[in-house]
Amino acid sequence: MSKPKAVILTHGELDSMYAKTCHGLLRGTDRYEIVGVVDYKYAGRSTTSVLPIVKDVPILASIGDCSDDGIAWCIVGVAFEGGVMPDAFRDQLIEAVKSGMSVVNGLHTQLNDDVEFMQLARSQGVEVIDIRRPKKVSELSFWTGKIKDVQAPRVAVLGTDCAIGKRTTCRFLLEQLAENGVNAQMIYTGQTGWLQGYPHGCILDSTLNDFVSGELENAVLECDQNMHPDLILVEGQSSLRNPSGPCGSEIIISLQSKYVVLQHDPSKEFFEGGEEYGFRIPDLKSEIELIRMLGAEVIAVTLRPSKDQISELDIGSMSQELGMMVQWATEAGIIAVSDLIQERVLSS
Amino acid sequence: MSKPKAVILTHGELDSMYAKTCHGLLRGTDRYEIVGVVDYKYAGRSTTSVLPIVKDVPILASIGDCSDDGIAWCIVGVAFEGGVMPDAFRDQLIEAVKSGMSVVNGLHTQLNDDVEFMQLARSQGVEVIDIRRPKKVSELSFWTGKIKDVQAPRVAVLGTDCAIGKRTTCRFLLEQLAENGVNAQMIYTGQTGWLQGYPHGCILDSTLNDFVSGELENAVLECDQNMHPDLILVEGQSSLRNPSGPCGSEIIISLQSKYVVLQHDPSKEFFEGGEEYGFRIPDLKSEIELIRMLGAEVIAVTLRPSKDQISELDIGSMSQELGMMVQWATEAGIIAVSDLIQERVLSS
Repeated sequence: MSKPKAVILTHGELDSMYAKTCHGLLRGTDRYEIVGVVDYKYAGRSTTSVLPIVKDVPILASIGDCSDDGIAWCIVGVAFEGGVMPDAFRDQLIEAVKSGMSVVNGLHTQLNDDVEFMQLARSQGVEVIDIRRPKKVSELSFWTGKIKDVQAPRVAVLGTDCAIGKRTTCRFLLEQLAENGVNAQMIYTGQTGWLQGYPHGCILDSTLNDFVSGELENAVLECDQNMHPDLILVEGQSSLRNPSGPCGSEIIISLQSKYVVLQHDPSKEFFEGGEEYGFRIPDLKSEIELIRMLGAEVIAVTLRPSKDQISELDIGSMSQELGMMVQWATEAGIIAVSDLIQERVLSS
Repeated sequence: MSKPKAVILTHGELDSMYAKTCHGLLRGTDRYEIVGVVDYKYAGRSTTSVLPIVKDVPILASIGDCSDDGIAWCIVGVAFEGGVMPDAFRDQLIEAVKSGMSVVNGLHTQLNDDVEFMQLARSQGVEVIDIRRPKKVSELSFWTGKIKDVQAPRVAVLGTDCAIGKRTTCRFLLEQLAENGVNAQMIYTGQTGWLQGYPHGCILDSTLNDFVSGELENAVLECDQNMHPDLILVEGQSSLRNPSGPCGSEIIISLQSKYVVLQHDPSKEFFEGGEEYGFRIPDLKSEIELIRMLGAEVIAVTLRPSKDQISELDIGSMSQELGMMVQWATEAGIIAVSDLIQERVLSS
């Protein structure tokens, strides 16, 4: 089955952490064939010259520069804090619609509520998907406790902050486990997971708070029924003590996830956006202890790689101090953690 | 300013824990004058014969039996798990509208989306308020960190389960502190708090998950600006480890609440609704430790009173074991905890 061609709009944000949606899509998606990125700042270059370890596609200055007329979709590739769409993005999306592209948008701003935009989309006969459009209460699931009937163990891939590579580590683990012949499935919890084409999950951000645990549980129940997995990886969001929106206890407690892989960035001192007010990321020992109190065991720490640190940091003594496996989230590290998961989770 | 007269509809649930909205309103509301309860099971009796320590009003069999034609509002007095409105409640509300009453509903079911119901309401010229109607993204606040600028200390009234009296203890503390001359304000976090007329708060249940911390922060910022409080009490929801929807870390972390009063029911072994699957309430020591790890200190435990236990339980040794004040949430207990809050929170 051929995938529809798509470009990703980042409009000056390609190398910022807000473009993590774009970065995730360039690492891989089963839903689209990514043929370009639209970003005026890096126009003329290619993505691999700006970002490491991603699919190599050309960077264009504007939607008007997309010469391939087979491009069916324009994907908003950024996720700003608060999720409000800047006018400049909307202008580019109008160009996309005028060129006959359908639009997929993961910001909280709902294009489907934008009367002018939708009139244009209808006249062009294109689709407009707002991924974070909140579901109605009648479509939402309430938590039931049936999670206790699911035999496949849950491994949560949590992190010590937002935007430090939880989803990517989760994806790498999934691929490595598959390579080892394990039927592992991933529950996505953010818009990029949906864009990447994972079949089971929910978008926590745009779920009414009372239904977060139920939507998560329902995604696991459906995944279990449809895919008969050996184990289930659950993508984390934010972090347990991120003041801008603590998250993770639902994943441990409501999903009865007994194992955690904890993603950490040793170069970060403050929570993303928390520098001004001095909100510090807690140390790893205390985060591991907090996870234990919530009912799960951290079996490995995965570190977001940065070239300088890989040479400098002594992960051997870090591992000894924490009493568990610590690995850079690079290929060798992922293989080691994946082996550990098989050994610890599947044989128990 | 006279308050509008209202009846509360509980329809057979008056003495169940689902009717906690009704119980809260019968303990006191600044928004309405409660003149009756509609509950076919207890019709002919009065509320004090069914429930302790509440306002004494007559119980009527049906809306048709409300003879006082000055009743302006009918309030849905129950909050079922999942929040879906049963047909029998809707039928009674149709009667209420036909009698010229406006309706206020705190279930997730939105009467404003019920075309037939709204046609009737319009033809009768009455109002229909869905308290849990989710706000649009454009009306929601994102967390900013400005909470650090608020001088008034925050005391969170959390609990070890849902529906064990957190809001009531919070209200009692508020009243006692006012009596002692302290300008304490409460941030409500549920529909009953809104119904009781507190001016600042948000309804966590029906808030999109990404905005929970921001809506809480905004409520505190507004409260601080408008009321210049000496201290702020924050009503908790659910509990930190309730599997059907863990809640509380936003209140501690995002609001930087440094103090906690922890409400507990010593007669309960399992989480509400968690008996079937054996979800046990963690012991108090571990809950207090968890709260410490999240950044706050439990300064007192308040126990939900039941007559049998008051005579049986040795709260002296319980207090010694936990190393803190333990009190029944009765008048004497509330006075003691209120004094402790003044001593510990206001003089520090």
